[in-house]
Amino acid sequence: MEPFHIVPEAQHNALIAAAYRHRGYDVDEAEEGARFCAEASRHGIRTHNGLKALHLDHVLGSGSQGCVPGAQIEEKPTRFAATKIWNANKKLGQATAYRAMAEATRLADRYGVGTVSVDNAFHYLWGGGYVMDAAKKGYIAYTNCTAALAEVVPFGGKFPTLGTNPHSWGFPTTAAVGFPIVIDWATSVIAMGRVQQLKREGKPLPPLAAVDKDGRPTTDPAAVAALLPFGAHKGYGLSLINELVASFIGGSLPTLRNRWDQAAGDKATCTFFFQVIHPEAISGGAFAKGRNQAENIKAVIADVLGHGNEGCLLPGQLEADWAKKTAAAGGLLFSAAEIEAFNEIAAECAQPRWNVAAFKLFAG
Amino acid sequence: MEPFHIVPEAQHNALIAAAYRHRGYDVDEAEEGARFCAEASRHGIRTHNGLKALHLDHVLGSGSQGCVPGAQIEEKPTRFAATKIWNANKKLGQATAYRAMAEATRLADRYGVGTVSVDNAFHYLWGGGYVMDAAKKGYIAYTNCTAALAEVVPFGGKFPTLGTNPHSWGFPTTAAVGFPIVIDWATSVIAMGRVQQLKREGKPLPPLAAVDKDGRPTTDPAAVAALLPFGAHKGYGLSLINELVASFIGGSLPTLRNRWDQAAGDKATCTFFFQVIHPEAISGGAFAKGRNQAENIKAVIADVLGHGNEGCLLPGQLEADWAKKTAAAGGLLFSAAEIEAFNEIAAECAQPRWNVAAFKLFAG
Repeated sequence: MEPFHIVPEAQHNALIAAAYRHRGYDVDEAEEGARFCAEASRHGIRTHNGLKALHLDHVLGSGSQGCVPGAQIEEKPTRFAATKIWNANKKLGQATAYRAMAEATRLADRYGVGTVSVDNAFHYLWGGGYVMDAAKKGYIAYTNCTAALAEVVPFGGKFPTLGTNPHSWGFPTTAAVGFPIVIDWATSVIAMGRVQQLKREGKPLPPLAAVDKDGRPTTDPAAVAALLPFGAHKGYGLSLINELVASFIGGSLPTLRNRWDQAAGDKATCTFFFQVIHPEAISGGAFAKGRNQAENIKAVIADVLGHGNEGCLLPGQLEADWAKKTAAAGGLLFSAAEIEAFNEIAAECAQPRWNVAAFKLFAG
Repeated sequence: MEPFHIVPEAQHNALIAAAYRHRGYDVDEAEEGARFCAEASRHGIRTHNGLKALHLDHVLGSGSQGCVPGAQIEEKPTRFAATKIWNANKKLGQATAYRAMAEATRLADRYGVGTVSVDNAFHYLWGGGYVMDAAKKGYIAYTNCTAALAEVVPFGGKFPTLGTNPHSWGFPTTAAVGFPIVIDWATSVIAMGRVQQLKREGKPLPPLAAVDKDGRPTTDPAAVAALLPFGAHKGYGLSLINELVASFIGGSLPTLRNRWDQAAGDKATCTFFFQVIHPEAISGGAFAKGRNQAENIKAVIADVLGHGNEGCLLPGQLEADWAKKTAAAGGLLFSAAEIEAFNEIAAECAQPRWNVAAFKLFAG
């Protein structure tokens, strides 16, 4: 493992928040944005940490036409009690998503289930973070969104018209296994960033992960024109769900998404969908052997991971393990290269540089 | 294509209902059971037609301890308005599922979203059928259930502790594309029935579809001890969702499911989860270029299947095509071998045999 430096969380959050404020965001948006980046780093989500957040904001967000600092969320009228519909007006994704999940939770507290659908949204970075947060609070949570760009070819097709369209599910299993089970992945086999990394390293792609310009599967990263969904027609169906949900909410053509230069008169924004279920709202209360709900969940998971399957991981376990390491370290863990990149952000917003030598090395 | 004989739907339904009644089911259960089998055959779901339904009832249902003819559904008390919890008391799966989806629809009409969780359930055959039915009525529907037996190995494991645990999503897209989009599949790469078929035919399995007794991937159908989830950890996560939802509802250990001889003092029943969303409850109403919701859905799908992807299928399209063939034929389509198997059912319940020569052949 590469050496990690221990950066105090407050120092990290202060820099990220300062960068967001420098770009025009409100204090609350900057704080929500920074808090979410800390959660990503705490759980080892290095692909969606503060560096990625601020990069995305630059290329697709406030630096482009995708995100508007200080935007106000507008609640649309509805005749339904357990569902809300918001126009995010391109507000910062983390701020929108935190608030939407909190609202869905309030609905679930009252009605057993609640959904919040968000039109005109901007990238929320890591869907797993929101469902994990809700699951830690005791709720069954789900979210999907449309991806930033159409990079994925439908099963049997040759042109990318779908996003990497992730799904994220979180379950309140802390009492049962010590952490929330979080099932969270993109519907592409790999991300385009991974293709670029393999290209730099001169390594082949896994089979059936991408196609060339003619729609033929390729393992040559230099020949990749688009990605493939995982699991053939099954991943294609899962990816399509996000575009369908988006099309019901208010999303427009996936090939126009975030392509503002091509979207004249059309919409290029993303959509979010959040759903929260109160665990008591699906409990029949009749668990075998006098177990309560948490004990029953624990017994079921022990059965799944028993019988010789003890080496299997639960989804969310790696993230929980990383959070333990972070807690033991007493700060967020970053590589020297990441700290260098944070210093570019510090320069942009005239904040003090981080001195890599001043951070303790993580020994764990 | 093998020749298909055109069997009048009323004749089919009368036989299936008579068989259910012969096994002790109430008139309404028998009719709901038959109606669902007709829907499966209408949509070309030959793996879950009336023959499979009555076979499953024999080996796992009323012929075993999994299903109780005439059982009454018991509604459990809940403080939540948009969610219901039922104890099915092992009622026939089709009858339970039809009623649960109808109840979830009533909740969605009132609250925007509704869920019905069912404990002590018996196999409902084809989840796609229920969400398709709801989607034809204009709703976004979802269901999952636990499979009849634990046949699937968790990702990285070697012993089957998961079911083929299907997920089914239906979308009301008839106005947009002419039929409901239905995404419906098991989380295993293939079904155990397919392994047995390949074994009979002396053909190898696809790679990474199954493992031998030591948990090693095998393509030899004779060596198969258990199935693998599709998409490695992703399909594993999807399969786990069904066991988790079941464990919240009231399901017990997956390795005990339907294994009544091993389940002394424990529960071996299945669970169902149903969810319906009213499409207006997620509509922001602000569709590009003045489109309404259906027009927007149509435009999004045209974009996904445009740009050279015109040859791609939509999930649910094959089923819709088969239903068109059935409508053109004026009856359900069965092979001679299937008609022979229906005659075994006719013999069981002392109904008139079907004379294969009396049915018109389907020319389409």
